[in-house]
Amino acid sequence: MLRTLEWTGSTLKLLDQTRLPNAVVDVELSTAIEVHDAIRRLVVRGAPAIGVSAAYGMLLGIRDARSLDELRVTLTETADLLGSARPTAVNLAWAIQRISLVAQTELRSAAATVRSVLERVEVECADMLRHDAEVCEAIGGHALPLLLAAGVRRGRDGRDNPIGILTHCNAGLLATCGIGTATAPIYLAHRRGIRLTVWADETRPLLQGARLTATELHQGGIDVRLICDDMAASVMSRGLVDAVIVGTDRVAANGDVANKIGTLGVAILARHFQIPFLVAAPTSSIDLACPSGRDIPIEQRAADEVTRFRSVPIAMDGIAVDNPAFDVTPYDLVTAIVTEHGVWTPPAE
Amino acid sequence: MLRTLEWTGSTLKLLDQTRLPNAVVDVELSTAIEVHDAIRRLVVRGAPAIGVSAAYGMLLGIRDARSLDELRVTLTETADLLGSARPTAVNLAWAIQRISLVAQTELRSAAATVRSVLERVEVECADMLRHDAEVCEAIGGHALPLLLAAGVRRGRDGRDNPIGILTHCNAGLLATCGIGTATAPIYLAHRRGIRLTVWADETRPLLQGARLTATELHQGGIDVRLICDDMAASVMSRGLVDAVIVGTDRVAANGDVANKIGTLGVAILARHFQIPFLVAAPTSSIDLACPSGRDIPIEQRAADEVTRFRSVPIAMDGIAVDNPAFDVTPYDLVTAIVTEHGVWTPPAE
Repeated sequence: MLRTLEWTGSTLKLLDQTRLPNAVVDVELSTAIEVHDAIRRLVVRGAPAIGVSAAYGMLLGIRDARSLDELRVTLTETADLLGSARPTAVNLAWAIQRISLVAQTELRSAAATVRSVLERVEVECADMLRHDAEVCEAIGGHALPLLLAAGVRRGRDGRDNPIGILTHCNAGLLATCGIGTATAPIYLAHRRGIRLTVWADETRPLLQGARLTATELHQGGIDVRLICDDMAASVMSRGLVDAVIVGTDRVAANGDVANKIGTLGVAILARHFQIPFLVAAPTSSIDLACPSGRDIPIEQRAADEVTRFRSVPIAMDGIAVDNPAFDVTPYDLVTAIVTEHGVWTPPAE
Repeated sequence: MLRTLEWTGSTLKLLDQTRLPNAVVDVELSTAIEVHDAIRRLVVRGAPAIGVSAAYGMLLGIRDARSLDELRVTLTETADLLGSARPTAVNLAWAIQRISLVAQTELRSAAATVRSVLERVEVECADMLRHDAEVCEAIGGHALPLLLAAGVRRGRDGRDNPIGILTHCNAGLLATCGIGTATAPIYLAHRRGIRLTVWADETRPLLQGARLTATELHQGGIDVRLICDDMAASVMSRGLVDAVIVGTDRVAANGDVANKIGTLGVAILARHFQIPFLVAAPTSSIDLACPSGRDIPIEQRAADEVTRFRSVPIAMDGIAVDNPAFDVTPYDLVTAIVTEHGVWTPPAE
């Protein structure tokens, strides 16, 4: 199985996701500047993995301080540096703030030393990493029975007959410090000897399904089949999909789900073929301040993501393009939202 | 507007579709071998355009005969040569047979000369070309009122408010000798000053929508927006699509429609959003010998169409792939099938 992120005790080891799927290569980082650069270049991506990387980046940024005064200065400098790596990543800002707070709390204690602050920060980083991995495991634990139930209802027991799962984009281990969110029940099932076949949508325009999801599942020993996005209906119509599970960027208070463009279409197909549509969502992605999907702004991205593929043009110059990064799946198409605390069927309190 | 194919009086001019979308270049062919090569290399594609090209290829293959005996020999040789260009293309075999029959009928007449046979064949070629263009116009004439009605029902009149049309793959002028089949009402509307916005699915894996449909509509002065296949649901959910129109490879007797992979998904989305789903089908594509979609075999194509994007690898080596070339849309998702003779709402006689 691939590993997104590892703290070696003195360096941060990241799987270089810019090299996927062609090469599986780690980079080892020993300064905050290197972490900033890795986050900016998308060596690491996915909210949880970015957050934990930034936390360790904070540690790397302050660990050479020779006095408490120098530590105070480098703490602020490192926070500013890392925060600028991907300004819109909420998790990044949150992780930096959390580490700053922990450090400052320790700095205010009378017995504070450089060593005590560094120790406190390192413990916090490890807690964040472990917590993220635990959230993944818990989501997997709650989601797996739903996948099994969906399979059994169609006469597939996961022994002689593999259960068919379809996913879109990458809400996988490559986005987290654990076994992913949407992929969590898949890895759990595999660990328990339950046979699955996973259909991975390639997910245009940026092909996260082809580049990331298919790669990590294949490396994890799971039977994965890559398809183009427009093949999902065909696969479903042939009875090969028992359940759909996807991740989410944001869940509104009413249960509407914002996720990678294409998710809405998959949800509608699932409804048509009476296939359960599950959303794996750590509670941190549930935004109770956002009443419904209508209140979620949808970013339009650059046209050349659509008209070019890795710099090769696939459309004539001057062709107009629509390139929304996300879509919103209304709650009534969502069978269940699975968090680390359990299963929620929207709409609800 | 682009022109797929033109007979100059002595040569066959084809738009080189292998050069699209990067360059708009004609090739001029003066021998049957060149026509064979052009069909094989997909310089020309689409059943009607292939058929007419092959017919002119027959003419080019026999025109240098110096005696009736030599003409008989070259007729057979040319038929064999052209028939091998794309052995599974039904229209190709049919066109070659038709020209052979016309030539042989003339050869059996007592007054036959090389000149009289060539004249008879050239007239037949021109008839085939004209007939194909007329079929396109007739389909457009029957389909346009349906598009207008769908627009008006949503408050779009095609004057101040453009009518939104979505199409998948290319059933356009580039596949025919006229204004295409699915695109026919679009060109007709444009000719009459009716404003449309056409959403073109890129159509993975081979990107006919991006490479062909977006190109030909843009060149024809039509407001076209290219989207990835997984964006269709988003565009529909925003109320931007009033009707869907696609072509077809084969319509079964009960009205089930086989077409490019992805068509079924678009039909399901259209149903979900209560958008009419129209199929443009020359009667030659209706196969009454085929009772239903279940009887249509679905070709699986090479994995590297999915794992590579114009030769750039997008998935890790060894990833399994599903790559069906077509899917079948059941008749109950089809609002209407539009032929050159009128509108058919399946199931029917």
